[in-house]
Parts: sequence; structure tokens; C-alpha cells
Amino acid sequence: MANNRNIVWHEPSITIDSRWKSNGYKSSVLWFTGLSASGKSTIAHALDECLHENGIHSYVLDGDNVRHGLNKDLDLSPASRKENIRRIGEVSKLFVDAGLLVLAAFIAPYREDRRQIRALLDKGQFIEVFVKCSVDECERRDPKGLYNKARKGQLKEFTGISAPYEIPENPEIILETDKFNKDECVKQILDYFVDNKYISTSTVNQKI
Amino acid sequence: MANNRNIVWHEPSITIDSRWKSNGYKSSVLWFTGLSASGKSTIAHALDECLHENGIHSYVLDGDNVRHGLNKDLDLSPASRKENIRRIGEVSKLFVDAGLLVLAAFIAPYREDRRQIRALLDKGQFIEVFVKCSVDECERRDPKGLYNKARKGQLKEFTGISAPYEIPENPEIILETDKFNKDECVKQILDYFVDNKYISTSTVNQKI
Repeated sequence: MANNRNIVWHEPSITIDSRWKSNGYKSSVLWFTGLSASGKSTIAHALDECLHENGIHSYVLDGDNVRHGLNKDLDLSPASRKENIRRIGEVSKLFVDAGLLVLAAFIAPYREDRRQIRALLDKGQFIEVFVKCSVDECERRDPKGLYNKARKGQLKEFTGISAPYEIPENPEIILETDKFNKDECVKQILDYFVDNKYISTSTVNQKI
Repeated sequence: MANNRNIVWHEPSITIDSRWKSNGYKSSVLWFTGLSASGKSTIAHALDECLHENGIHSYVLDGDNVRHGLNKDLDLSPASRKENIRRIGEVSKLFVDAGLLVLAAFIAPYREDRRQIRALLDKGQFIEVFVKCSVDECERRDPKGLYNKARKGQLKEFTGISAPYEIPENPEIILETDKFNKDECVKQILDYFVDNKYISTSTVNQKI
């Protein structure tokens, strides 16, 4: 039992650089933006699995785990939509600080919202991934029947139909999901990681 | 280039069990509760460093990284305090889902708030750590001069002085910081992890 005078009440902390060094990859946010049914969540989850198999810690943030938890108090008003994006940005920042690759899959139709999240993070920590797919193709897929409902007027302000989607001007990555399949899109992202030194070739085995 | 018909639009996901298996430890929340200056943050950061050295992914959530980011829109009203704790609980849940050990260091003076966070998580994922220290000793330490201000009436509703602190009834761990030093407290937590199979002895080298 030690005398309490021995307690040093300082606050050490692990720097993000130290996490990068020990982890072998740089934590950052991949923000998948695009129309409903463009493939954001599908590709994010496929990438998550691939990274997991290679011992890289990543996590998908999407409507499933955010809307029903942290942001369940928010409605669809403009103020709430803004707050929704703000909180996702702040949570992403915490995950990056913790050393993870965040795979955020949200429509985020407004440039200004995406710009604000980029501004929240340090240089190179925000990778905008434009999941590009024509409205026609998204509507053809329509896995949740949302486009159908939007066309019938049952869903108001539906992005791409009755609300705008502002195309990213300078995204780091463009995935053309009406031309390439899921595995090809994942490969494209892995190549980006390696080319831009987020992951070293020795860290990722390039299993796919 | 593949035909888009090849795209399988399903949503795979990595289970928490699969993360546990590959990580070698169980993700969970350690909630450090106790008076101001009892040693919550100090011990959380010391534990974080120790885990980091042993290749275990953990992250400290505390006032420093939450109040100025995610919860910067909240004031000190009762409703805001409740929302503050709710959001921290939801973020902790996301981190646990991502496979991390969350070290949450917040006074959280009310049993009901702590109970709600426990209820949010699965069995065994919430470890309540009562950082026990007398008000007298905390006031003697007073590294930020807060007790001094509270005694002078410059801080209203200060926990332990002019606002209640509800002592945990059945915390998983009690750290007596007026009897044991920082390293001894960290060791006590590591022993708890090993005894309760959160970490295997082979995972942690017990460096300290």
C-alpha cells in the first residue's frame, strides 16, 4: 500500500502518431456519399470485412447503428439533418483519434455538410468517396422500394427525385457502381490506401 | 469490367464475437465514476497507455474530447446533463461494437444515469469502476481549484459540495485512490480483466 503522496495526477495520452506507428495504418474517415441504393453501405461493409481479415481495425457508421441510437432524438427537419451530420462527424473524429478507419455511409447530399466534416479533421484524415450511380440505375435496383414510394409522393424530399443531391466536386475517390462490381470497388479503395500510404503493402495482404 | 448484374447488394457485417476472437480481448465499457479529483481521468489514461503497450485497443472518453466536440451544444441544465450522459452511452456502445475497450471517465453522479448506460449494453459489457476517495482528500488535491471555487459559491451545484454524489451500490470494481497509487489501481483493473476473462493472460504481458 503506497502513500497517497506518491500519486502523480498528470494526464498522459497516446498520440495519434503513436497509434499509427503501432497499428501499421493511418486512421481516417472514408465518407461514402451518393444516392440511395448507389451501393454505399454494401461497399463499406465489404471493405470492413476485407480490412478485418487483414488485421486492420475499421468500423462502419451508417443509418443502422446511428439513427436508432445516438441520433434517435432527431427528426427529418433541416435543423435535425444538420445536427445528424454534425454528430456523425464528431463521432468519426473520436474514432479516428482512437486509431480506427471509419467507413461512414450516409447520403449527405449537401456539399456544405461534407465540407464541414472535412474541416473538423486534420489534413488527409477525410477521404471523400463518391459512390457514383445514375438515378435510373438506383431506381432500377430500389432494394427497399423507396424510389417507388418517392415517385408516388409517399416520401417527401427524397434525394435524387424531389430533393437535390450535390455531386462532390473534388472527391478523393469515385466508385462507379453501375460499371464495376463490389469487389472491384473494394480493390480500388485498397489501391488508394496503398498509393497514398494509409496502409503499407506489408500490412495488407491484398487477399481479394 | 463486370456487368452490374454481378453486384450482390447484401449487407455483410462483422459480429462482435468475431472481433473478440481475432482481437484476443472482449470489448466493453469501463465507466470510471467518482468525485472531481478522485483520479478518474488519471487512472483511465494510465490504463490506456498500459493496454496500448500490450497491443490492446482502448480509448479514453472524457470531458476533454466529448465536451468540446460531440456535446458542445449542451449546457449544464438538468436536461442537457441527461442528454450528455445519453450520448456518451451511445458512443460507448458504438466503440464496443467496433471492438474497443472504452475507458469513460465522467463524474456521472446519479445512479439512474449509470443504470441507463448499463441497460444500453449487453451483459458483461459495462464495468462500473467506483473511484473512491473522500471529499476531504479530493478537496486537498483540488488540481483545478474547483473545490475552492465551489466553497466560495462561484460554482453552483458542485458534486460533493453543493450537489449530491450517489455512491455506486454494486460496482464491479472499487479503486481506493486515497490508499493506493495509480499503478496499483491499474494493476487492480488488469487483474479484474484477467480474472473475468476479458483478457487472456497470454494477451497481456503484465508489464507493470
